[in-house]
Amino acid sequence: MESIRGKVAIIGVGMIPFGEHFEKSMEDMAQETYINCIKSVDKGIEPKKDIKAAWLGNLGRLFGAGAMSGSWLATQIGNTGIPITRIESGCPTGSDTLRHAIFGVASGMYDVVLALGAEKMREKPGTESLIALGTIGLGGHPSWTWGSTAPAMQAVYATRQMYELGYTMETFARVAVKNHHNGKLCPFAHYRYEVTIEDVLRSPMVCWPLHLLDCCPQTDGAAAVIVCRADLAKNYTDKPVYVLGTHVGLDHSFYWDKHNFIEMLATVRAANGAFDMAGIKREEVDFAEVHDCFTNTEVMNYEDIGFCKKGEGGPRLMEGYFDIDGPLPIQPSGGLKAHGHPIAATGISQICECFWQLREEAGDRQVKLKNGIALQHNVGGAGFGVSCVTITSRNP
Amino acid sequence: MESIRGKVAIIGVGMIPFGEHFEKSMEDMAQETYINCIKSVDKGIEPKKDIKAAWLGNLGRLFGAGAMSGSWLATQIGNTGIPITRIESGCPTGSDTLRHAIFGVASGMYDVVLALGAEKMREKPGTESLIALGTIGLGGHPSWTWGSTAPAMQAVYATRQMYELGYTMETFARVAVKNHHNGKLCPFAHYRYEVTIEDVLRSPMVCWPLHLLDCCPQTDGAAAVIVCRADLAKNYTDKPVYVLGTHVGLDHSFYWDKHNFIEMLATVRAANGAFDMAGIKREEVDFAEVHDCFTNTEVMNYEDIGFCKKGEGGPRLMEGYFDIDGPLPIQPSGGLKAHGHPIAATGISQICECFWQLREEAGDRQVKLKNGIALQHNVGGAGFGVSCVTITSRNP
Repeated sequence: MESIRGKVAIIGVGMIPFGEHFEKSMEDMAQETYINCIKSVDKGIEPKKDIKAAWLGNLGRLFGAGAMSGSWLATQIGNTGIPITRIESGCPTGSDTLRHAIFGVASGMYDVVLALGAEKMREKPGTESLIALGTIGLGGHPSWTWGSTAPAMQAVYATRQMYELGYTMETFARVAVKNHHNGKLCPFAHYRYEVTIEDVLRSPMVCWPLHLLDCCPQTDGAAAVIVCRADLAKNYTDKPVYVLGTHVGLDHSFYWDKHNFIEMLATVRAANGAFDMAGIKREEVDFAEVHDCFTNTEVMNYEDIGFCKKGEGGPRLMEGYFDIDGPLPIQPSGGLKAHGHPIAATGISQICECFWQLREEAGDRQVKLKNGIALQHNVGGAGFGVSCVTITSRNP
Repeated sequence: MESIRGKVAIIGVGMIPFGEHFEKSMEDMAQETYINCIKSVDKGIEPKKDIKAAWLGNLGRLFGAGAMSGSWLATQIGNTGIPITRIESGCPTGSDTLRHAIFGVASGMYDVVLALGAEKMREKPGTESLIALGTIGLGGHPSWTWGSTAPAMQAVYATRQMYELGYTMETFARVAVKNHHNGKLCPFAHYRYEVTIEDVLRSPMVCWPLHLLDCCPQTDGAAAVIVCRADLAKNYTDKPVYVLGTHVGLDHSFYWDKHNFIEMLATVRAANGAFDMAGIKREEVDFAEVHDCFTNTEVMNYEDIGFCKKGEGGPRLMEGYFDIDGPLPIQPSGGLKAHGHPIAATGISQICECFWQLREEAGDRQVKLKNGIALQHNVGGAGFGVSCVTITSRNP
């Protein structure tokens, strides 16, 4: 795999505060996010002149239409004169949308492009809701998941983590405590309040051993990123953020094809691919935004990404290793757990957070930087069969 | 826009005969197509070793699942070790899937990649059928199309073509006559019989002025292409087909935003972009596979792609200019009209036809080559707001 290091940079990001946006249409959310993104470019940008292509992330079903091609976004940004393609990769839709924007620039085809993800999750809180992910309506082919909901599918992992690794409900609850603490500091987060381990354990049981407060919320949101040829980035900002590596990893979606239920092979592969491309070691990462759709998933991610060995994630978490003031802060934004998970917007919002943190513009939730390198991760899709990891840096 | 000329080649293609495949699952269709594609590589390929990434085209709703990420294809091709992303761009889904495979190679990230499109159209012949495209279920946001079906949306164009350009129902019917003639010669075509102008005009009226035989059928199918770095292509075949240009063009999806109804701006833009990238003139194209979802659309395409001026398409068609033995054969495969339109497979199957024709392997339907250059085109999505044009050549 060829390195893309030095080829591609991020010059601007924008989003809207995540939450319940019954008052905003998808159109409103996309327009507001686009405008915020354009305005964020320090030295200014002429969007109609400079932006040569775009990618739209949307999971689609919640959008009310199947063939939700890029022309919808073209109308929202007032520019039908560029190519726009919709990307769908399950829960990593946002990060894979960015990955395609990166390809577009790295291919030499376009100098400056846009990646925007948007999702309305709150308007259909019934069978098509996030909690129902994995049922026939959304999230998987019915024959794969037998109508299981997302918590039920994840509980298979959680129970094996408990059985094989000695983790407990308290371990998982500690993730919620950490992430809600960070979310409280983030003005874009859906939930801005603290929770305790007791709060989590006392919250309603959704699917044993996962309580309501182990599950990420259903959130409306949108986020966008402007990607640029690295050698042109300084025309737009003195502080571009560079893409070191981005990779999608897969696994079978059928549960009967899984090798075990304490490791997500998709994440392992995405991380290995992204680190290979970046040419850096795990220890060089200063902080990460990972996919905590459920609290147990986050603990698995520590290990699958390679920040520690299998079985070490839980103990390190309990020690505060991943706290915002710890050696390796995970989820300064609050994570999916507190920041929210509007599917196609999630990955891109995590990149927004990496951008702000790497530029030391994250206010109260600013983490300490050493190498100036951030990691972003999603995992999901039918049977958690797809993952995407993107590594960014303040240095080319 | 940088030229991709000389960077990317096609080294193998494969498909299954299009038609009604109640006896085959999506899985069966994808597997068979993949195997045919692998086998087509003249000097052989080790798929698990050589193919480094893939893209899956699928419109999705008909597939029975919303989050139909690439892991499904990974399982079908027996390789979860590579990244696979699903692309959705309305009716141009297949060609845009290929475009992203081209980006993957042109970016330097992957040497050899796969693009596969598959669609089951026949298992839901009700409200989600192709004929119902444009209704709330599929094809467009309800507020854009007010529940119109695809023939109704296209009839708006057909009536204006008649009023402004003097075209008649006979003009449109002549497209069906030509394409069915070609389809009869193509072993992969869904409909392999001739029709006359009288047959078309006597067939049931679907939406004035479009008769049943003016509409493409609902077809099951799958098609695949292997894309390779041009400088490595000769390791796989002595007769690679080179990509000269590929571009997506957009237009607003809302009908009230359209500038007129005799021209599809998405097609004009896609064609202009692809020709710019290829650095060739319209006259250099030997033959084309274009998007004849309805017969009147094909006539519009002649003009919008730039093969002739607005208003000249109909007369040239009637003269036999676009016949298989005419100066510019259009639809040697039979087109969507006779070959079929399994949405995400369509664009890729058109590229298969270009590949075979450019290698002079198209048997009874072989066209005469002069420059060895082919054009492929799709248009569709909500409000016909997205188009993709790809230009290929037997010379680098």
